[in-house]
Amino acid sequence: MTYPLESEPHAGPRLDDPEYRAAVVDLLGVLAFTELTAFVRLAADAALAPRIGDEAQLAGMAVAEFRHFTLLRDRLAELGADPEQAMQPFVAPVNGFHESTAPADWLEGLVKAYVGDGVGVDFYREVARFLDTETQALVLGVLEDTGHSAFVVTTIREAIAADPRVAGRLALWGRRLMGEMLSQAQRTAAERDALSNLLVGGASGAGMPGFDLAEIGRMFARLTENHTRRMQAMGLSA
Amino acid sequence: MTYPLESEPHAGPRLDDPEYRAAVVDLLGVLAFTELTAFVRLAADAALAPRIGDEAQLAGMAVAEFRHFTLLRDRLAELGADPEQAMQPFVAPVNGFHESTAPADWLEGLVKAYVGDGVGVDFYREVARFLDTETQALVLGVLEDTGHSAFVVTTIREAIAADPRVAGRLALWGRRLMGEMLSQAQRTAAERDALSNLLVGGASGAGMPGFDLAEIGRMFARLTENHTRRMQAMGLSA
Repeated sequence: MTYPLESEPHAGPRLDDPEYRAAVVDLLGVLAFTELTAFVRLAADAALAPRIGDEAQLAGMAVAEFRHFTLLRDRLAELGADPEQAMQPFVAPVNGFHESTAPADWLEGLVKAYVGDGVGVDFYREVARFLDTETQALVLGVLEDTGHSAFVVTTIREAIAADPRVAGRLALWGRRLMGEMLSQAQRTAAERDALSNLLVGGASGAGMPGFDLAEIGRMFARLTENHTRRMQAMGLSA
Repeated sequence: MTYPLESEPHAGPRLDDPEYRAAVVDLLGVLAFTELTAFVRLAADAALAPRIGDEAQLAGMAVAEFRHFTLLRDRLAELGADPEQAMQPFVAPVNGFHESTAPADWLEGLVKAYVGDGVGVDFYREVARFLDTETQALVLGVLEDTGHSAFVVTTIREAIAADPRVAGRLALWGRRLMGEMLSQAQRTAAERDALSNLLVGGASGAGMPGFDLAEIGRMFARLTENHTRRMQAMGLSA
């Protein structure tokens, strides 16, 4: 393990630090597999669309996720990691999440796309500040590419206007999605030392970047606040 | 209906000819919806992949189809047509094709991707020569973007090497796919006057471009010959 030189005390994390590097490979691995899976699931949900234009919209969201996947995979390869190997530890939890949250219809699929994308964007933004400059640029670049949310918000609001009973069912669905995401994320982090060291590096005192414990609590508060805001935007109580 | 000026006897079809224009809108409509649906189905089949790398490969093939879709849709809009309306007549036959050919497993999904993509490319090439210069450039541009076939050929050959019984089942499957494609195409063309006039314009004597009847027979012969070649490339009898 290497340390920053004394002359550059705030040089930030360095990829030639093997502990930091392992954490970044883990992080890019989980993000890459999450994006690949989001692509496949969103694209499949597009088949539920009632109109061709809707199908094309959801397909477009899926394709954006695939672009993110390729960026993350290529970065893993650049770092000398085997992308498949880096993603492998996250196959079971990510697939488990999707199996326990298969949308029953088109509207549930849309809410899942919007809620999942939103939490993903928030998490990317939170974690970006602990990354080395290059990895940070990649993660922030992925963020810029999102933003099909107006379509989802409009469609859900229209569906509720047409049949107000829809709101209760979709509100429950949104809460279940958020709960499943948080519990899967927690379980995954608990099993991956390098990854959780990156996130709670400040707490471990090991010279790694990351949140301290109070900050982790605040991060979760921010994630759930933003989730609540998104649910409200769709006309749903969170 | 306008005719080429005498001074330019071989000027080719013109978009200000309403009959030709209607045929092009029909053609772009069926191609666009075929690509959108191919995207959705291929992406969903990617979930059947045994390995992450395989999943990413099939996902990449799907994304190429989505790019084609957006090119075709944008061209429809450029021509002043409503893309959704142009695609609508083809929803039932294209979805019907996919419902009657849902792959039972990963290998069937791969063969379908390869066979479908191959026949699509052949058909684009056949029809391109009857199009005005701009539409032709678009259709030929879509063609350039394909070519993930090496991956499929290798994977199918490996699967047959590992278990030779696979070959018989997949050969039957490939024949069924080709049969379903031809019969759906025939039924669709029979219902769409403008479209079939474009393809058999030479036979109608109405001044439209297109094949004469003997040439249609030869086109089908070429499509099935190329299909046979692709089946053989995978190690399958056609």
